[in-house]
Amino acid sequence: MSEPVTLNRRRVLNLGIAGAGAAALTPALAAAQTPDPLIVEKQEWTQYLGEGVNAKPYGVPSKFEKEVVRREVEWLTASRQSSVSFTPLHALDGIITPNGLCFVRHHGGEAEIDPAKHRFMINGMVDKPLVFTMEDVKRMPGRVNRVYFLECAANSGMEWRGAQLNGCQFTHGMIHNVVYTGVPLKAFLNEAGVSPKGKWVLAEGADASAMTRSIPLEKAMDDCLVAWAMNGEALRPEQGYPLRLVVPGWEGNMWVKWLRRVEVGDQPWAQREETSKYTDLLADGRSRQHTFLMDAKSVVTNPSPQAPLKSKGPNVLSGVAWSGRGTIKRVDVSMDGGRNWRTARIEGPNFPRAMARFYVDFDWNGQELMLQSRAMDDSGYVQPTKDELRKYRGSNSIYHNNGIQTWLVRPDGSAENVEVS
Amino acid sequence: MSEPVTLNRRRVLNLGIAGAGAAALTPALAAAQTPDPLIVEKQEWTQYLGEGVNAKPYGVPSKFEKEVVRREVEWLTASRQSSVSFTPLHALDGIITPNGLCFVRHHGGEAEIDPAKHRFMINGMVDKPLVFTMEDVKRMPGRVNRVYFLECAANSGMEWRGAQLNGCQFTHGMIHNVVYTGVPLKAFLNEAGVSPKGKWVLAEGADASAMTRSIPLEKAMDDCLVAWAMNGEALRPEQGYPLRLVVPGWEGNMWVKWLRRVEVGDQPWAQREETSKYTDLLADGRSRQHTFLMDAKSVVTNPSPQAPLKSKGPNVLSGVAWSGRGTIKRVDVSMDGGRNWRTARIEGPNFPRAMARFYVDFDWNGQELMLQSRAMDDSGYVQPTKDELRKYRGSNSIYHNNGIQTWLVRPDGSAENVEVS
Repeated sequence: MSEPVTLNRRRVLNLGIAGAGAAALTPALAAAQTPDPLIVEKQEWTQYLGEGVNAKPYGVPSKFEKEVVRREVEWLTASRQSSVSFTPLHALDGIITPNGLCFVRHHGGEAEIDPAKHRFMINGMVDKPLVFTMEDVKRMPGRVNRVYFLECAANSGMEWRGAQLNGCQFTHGMIHNVVYTGVPLKAFLNEAGVSPKGKWVLAEGADASAMTRSIPLEKAMDDCLVAWAMNGEALRPEQGYPLRLVVPGWEGNMWVKWLRRVEVGDQPWAQREETSKYTDLLADGRSRQHTFLMDAKSVVTNPSPQAPLKSKGPNVLSGVAWSGRGTIKRVDVSMDGGRNWRTARIEGPNFPRAMARFYVDFDWNGQELMLQSRAMDDSGYVQPTKDELRKYRGSNSIYHNNGIQTWLVRPDGSAENVEVS
Repeated sequence: MSEPVTLNRRRVLNLGIAGAGAAALTPALAAAQTPDPLIVEKQEWTQYLGEGVNAKPYGVPSKFEKEVVRREVEWLTASRQSSVSFTPLHALDGIITPNGLCFVRHHGGEAEIDPAKHRFMINGMVDKPLVFTMEDVKRMPGRVNRVYFLECAANSGMEWRGAQLNGCQFTHGMIHNVVYTGVPLKAFLNEAGVSPKGKWVLAEGADASAMTRSIPLEKAMDDCLVAWAMNGEALRPEQGYPLRLVVPGWEGNMWVKWLRRVEVGDQPWAQREETSKYTDLLADGRSRQHTFLMDAKSVVTNPSPQAPLKSKGPNVLSGVAWSGRGTIKRVDVSMDGGRNWRTARIEGPNFPRAMARFYVDFDWNGQELMLQSRAMDDSGYVQPTKDELRKYRGSNSIYHNNGIQTWLVRPDGSAENVEVS
């Protein structure tokens, strides 16, 4: 980490960042002013009665927040029905992703399901196949509430061959983190009675793609949930309304939306999404398969290309970290491309297999910064650099890029996706 | 608690509920069926490609959830600009209230504030009055994320004189529970330098009502937050966008929305909302003032008048509990109007001064039920009956009714707001 820093895509002309890592925290805000009562008097919204309480039975964000939306990368896919829109991580804070901003990945478009007609089936190697209505699902004993991140295995996938997309919404926005309400899948499997020969389950969705993924029975009987609510209310249609599978810590594609069936079998099924897709082509031409776990990862969300620095003096660096192995225990932040590190403050609720929020209060004197974050979880796993990942896995992969991200922040406060090596 | 149960408003003809409290939990669901593959084949949403990912940059609930909205009680107030809409507690689960469903209480309508023009002032008995832009507010060191309930002091206020409104949305829906992102108010006060003479602060809103409340300095320097985000995104307009005060565990009216000013003084200000309103008229004609704390309280949300029981056999009773004094430690549930009690399962994240979720898995044979819940917090406080409250406070009050709520559930599954004494 003490080698000189170089940039892959951009030459940094003014790398005066040696002191950035050690900048003193100053509580004073330069911009705090002597009060000008006129400013308050001129606030026109104090002059009229606003909208009544009946205006919005279901509320929406302020019109001044209209840029805070999910966004696509249009050249990424041929069809909008098999595409992705990204969570605006740079505009969020805390750990909860609002339901309206949770990234979307469809394979056959959004199924628009009438919950009264939806059925959930347990079949295959079981004593007694069962079909549940949604009412029946909600009558199952053992309901739980759990906070989990859901990350698409392809998140940051475009970065395998170097810095590409300018914004954490696009590089890291295939993730969301919500509270799920549901019942452990184990309860349904036990109700049906799993055969001693059962070793795997197949989860199947009711959308046009009939999404199907094989999951080891051990995981299905451990912490998987059959969930119908997120952040307190019914699942959103694009997140699998009325029912989805929750597979904590594992790749998002396995969290089958519009869940209609779980079949028990004695071996994996080798469906399309676990053979031609969601496998990792290595440098020697072989592919890794069944790479379910999402390893520890983090990203600085502010500042970042979509959220530049606007003022010198006191500033707050913020970001998110998560690990499919367990709980985030520590996040280190570098402001000089990995030479010097400081430990960030993990702040707020912090659950296993959920997103954690971190902050570094720092003072910016206008120098160039190269921001990185490095997550560590309670298994001892440390987030690697992109080069460390490529050493073992080449650069053919699409999935499972959890390498350290770098943002270059220029003296004018603007930021860019770069890579150091 | 062993006296015969009688009803204030309704005579119960068939009170066959003695055994309900001890009903065995059975895991089997009567409605689970032999699979009928035709059911799955007939699901039309498997037959067509759905909407693409670009359809909703900011997502909305399913069209099948259109009844899950905030609702008003139209006769309650003369004007929609000074009124309330209620959180649909009966349709929610877990502990997070979705932003679009958080109850609204306005006093001068919804201020529609341009954050670029908004200012936040600290003045009064301070060394150095300060004015902050929103950018400056967000640059303050020490940002935190905290989950808190916000309950209007008038929640359940219409129940002082007996059971009135048929549904927990209306009896208990002036509450929400979200994750706030902000900076402790203490940091702003310290930045300005509070005079040794300072004992109180006045918080003032930028809406047309210029909402103003006095808060003891001790509380202001303890856990109050100046918050700009809820559940990950910017505050909603009706919740004070772009800035609100968070006063954990204290009555909602003090959580000033559209926060523009905090003044330090040596005594309370005796504003309208702390004299003619938000005081409690006792039986002897005197009034309690400065009754800030929201005591421990709970309500069964399911079943309830808006969420009847639909099936015999296994069912899940659910509800929420909260306390301004600290953390909910235990919730007991009675199914026979307070004769017999069982301890509910508190499930999911459970934070101080935040809403907790509880469940009781039970078996219903069609008998009449009288459902109650009783919350206990870690201070040892136990939620009282309504009669216990009236003994000390009469029945003239509007505010601070945290008495035990009763739902009568009839053999047909329908439920009604009743009162036992």
